[in-house]
Amino acid sequence: MQTRSNAVTTFATGWYSSGMHDFRGRYGRFLTELETRGLDGFLVQHRSNLTYLYNFTGSAGLACCLGRETILLVDSRYHEQARATAANCTPRLIRGSFEQALEELLNDRFPGGGPRKRLGLEAAHTSCDLWLRMQTWTAAVEWIPEHDLIETLRIIKEPSEIDALTRAFELAQRAYARFLGQISPGMAEVRMAGILEMEMRNAGGEGAAFSTIVASGPRSSLPHGVATGRIWGEEELLLIDFGIRSGGYSSDLTRIQLPPGVGKPEIFDIVSEAQHAALDSIRPGVQSSDVDRAARRVIEEAGHGDHFQHSTGHGLGLEVHELPRISPIRPQILEPGMVFTVEPGIYLPGRMGVRIEDVVAVTETGYRLLSDPDR
Amino acid sequence: MQTRSNAVTTFATGWYSSGMHDFRGRYGRFLTELETRGLDGFLVQHRSNLTYLYNFTGSAGLACCLGRETILLVDSRYHEQARATAANCTPRLIRGSFEQALEELLNDRFPGGGPRKRLGLEAAHTSCDLWLRMQTWTAAVEWIPEHDLIETLRIIKEPSEIDALTRAFELAQRAYARFLGQISPGMAEVRMAGILEMEMRNAGGEGAAFSTIVASGPRSSLPHGVATGRIWGEEELLLIDFGIRSGGYSSDLTRIQLPPGVGKPEIFDIVSEAQHAALDSIRPGVQSSDVDRAARRVIEEAGHGDHFQHSTGHGLGLEVHELPRISPIRPQILEPGMVFTVEPGIYLPGRMGVRIEDVVAVTETGYRLLSDPDR
Repeated sequence: MQTRSNAVTTFATGWYSSGMHDFRGRYGRFLTELETRGLDGFLVQHRSNLTYLYNFTGSAGLACCLGRETILLVDSRYHEQARATAANCTPRLIRGSFEQALEELLNDRFPGGGPRKRLGLEAAHTSCDLWLRMQTWTAAVEWIPEHDLIETLRIIKEPSEIDALTRAFELAQRAYARFLGQISPGMAEVRMAGILEMEMRNAGGEGAAFSTIVASGPRSSLPHGVATGRIWGEEELLLIDFGIRSGGYSSDLTRIQLPPGVGKPEIFDIVSEAQHAALDSIRPGVQSSDVDRAARRVIEEAGHGDHFQHSTGHGLGLEVHELPRISPIRPQILEPGMVFTVEPGIYLPGRMGVRIEDVVAVTETGYRLLSDPDR
Repeated sequence: MQTRSNAVTTFATGWYSSGMHDFRGRYGRFLTELETRGLDGFLVQHRSNLTYLYNFTGSAGLACCLGRETILLVDSRYHEQARATAANCTPRLIRGSFEQALEELLNDRFPGGGPRKRLGLEAAHTSCDLWLRMQTWTAAVEWIPEHDLIETLRIIKEPSEIDALTRAFELAQRAYARFLGQISPGMAEVRMAGILEMEMRNAGGEGAAFSTIVASGPRSSLPHGVATGRIWGEEELLLIDFGIRSGGYSSDLTRIQLPPGVGKPEIFDIVSEAQHAALDSIRPGVQSSDVDRAARRVIEEAGHGDHFQHSTGHGLGLEVHELPRISPIRPQILEPGMVFTVEPGIYLPGRMGVRIEDVVAVTETGYRLLSDPDR
């Protein structure tokens, strides 16, 4: 793999065109949010935020919003791509480092003092290194660390985003069906993960959205059981947790497979019931923590409260983990357009684990499943 | 995929045991480096640094070295794993957040003022968010942003690391040979990438180390041409850049394939000559920038200087990109045990690109190729 590359690219393919998304509306809401927070501008570095606001999908870029205008700093790898497809911004090719280009941009823009400008930045995605150097730049700018400013805008999905997610789940289910036809006890977890990842590509996905989890027998009790060389035993259950990337969005599903003739364990039915209880609670106006509670109550009443220690779900969109959280902490009122996973689980250490994960979009009256719950 | 999980795991597999590496020696060199820099301790957050010093491979963890002792903060997902395999540290299970646990640890350790302790941290891997909050913690600690402290220790590989890298390249070449038997013009790039990734798993790798690049025809002129739906044309060259993860280390190779009967383009021979010139210059005592120069000179003399704008190579180890840089900037004197890529390229925008990438370990007298240069 090449390191930072400056090779000129006069054409490009391989990023997705997202002309269908409402970039203009997003940018308007973003500017309104800056105004609300008393900011004169904002620095965007986080990749999914650059994609969301500016339709920029390169691996490196830096957007500096000043007033209503944004300059998108890009290197030569992505300049042509940005000029062809970026929204809400003017791409500018950098010659040296991003940092140097940003400092120069600010010096050009604010040559003589004047009233100090308050520019926000993504506190979680700015290194303390850069932060400390920024303090030595022009005194015309005061940097304000902000939290989840753009992430909060991203919680409510546009119809085009729900379409993209729906498509990712269609591909996921197609890949999964083909995968099921090729696996059997006696195969190593890594081999099965390889088959599933190939079928994700064959189905039309851009690849795996995260390290595919294929955990057999006792390894299913590890909530993060990324595939190993372990062989799937004849009598054992298999837990598969996988995601496809498609059009910039990701699916996220967890399924349990059992060898022919092997019955479902008792905890399967409990987890399934917990998931249904959570789903039944979903509608606009409900607290996200109540959805978590609904699932957790079923598992606790079955005596397995200690065996379910993760949250019930998480938002899904441009990132595999985003807002809202479906957990006891930081509850949020559900609104139409929110998309999140519902994935209770029971983990019996050293024995087995069951997690069932589906994904919903909140509607005006309840929810719609993006995944096929038939399992 | 589950979010932050607290499920108890009383056993674990799926991380690699690295008992063969010299963890004790590493920790000794680390403590010496702290002393040299006048530090009373250090905070390690970056994953590959946690792996290097503490043999910890979980996705989340935080090591706080105070004096000669290190406390490794882990959540319940990784506590058992850490107790079983971590080196040079005492694992401690956290109950709330990592940040909270760290603050409590420092409060416990420095209850009464006393002389202020200078604790280093990884400036590039600490968010400004955390940095700002740390300033409000106990006055007994002064936080010192440090750059590449552990990364610099990692430049010289131990024999066991070179063994692990050699093994990754063996798997890579095996997977690649199998892949070649299955591809032909008329196939989509993503389909070919899927086959290669499956063969990486079949060969025994833990998966792809980075997004597999399969770029056909004019797309090969994109130095970052991650596979798309484009079909490999009958007369076109194919550029493949891929890495296998194995035992925590990664391979990194770029190869050019041509359909039967299609001759190598002129730029192939130039790039090959440039690579040989770079390889010929490698021995202890040489500046890394001179290796870059050797490759660049050949390409410039062939009139393609403007078509090779990335660096000639980069270090390879626990991360796919690490020190040393083989580029004009930040030159470093080569020493035995350094491992890096040599990957010159020529990119003709809109037409085609050629990059050839192999990897060397610097020896006492010259270098040893980890990859098979027969292509």
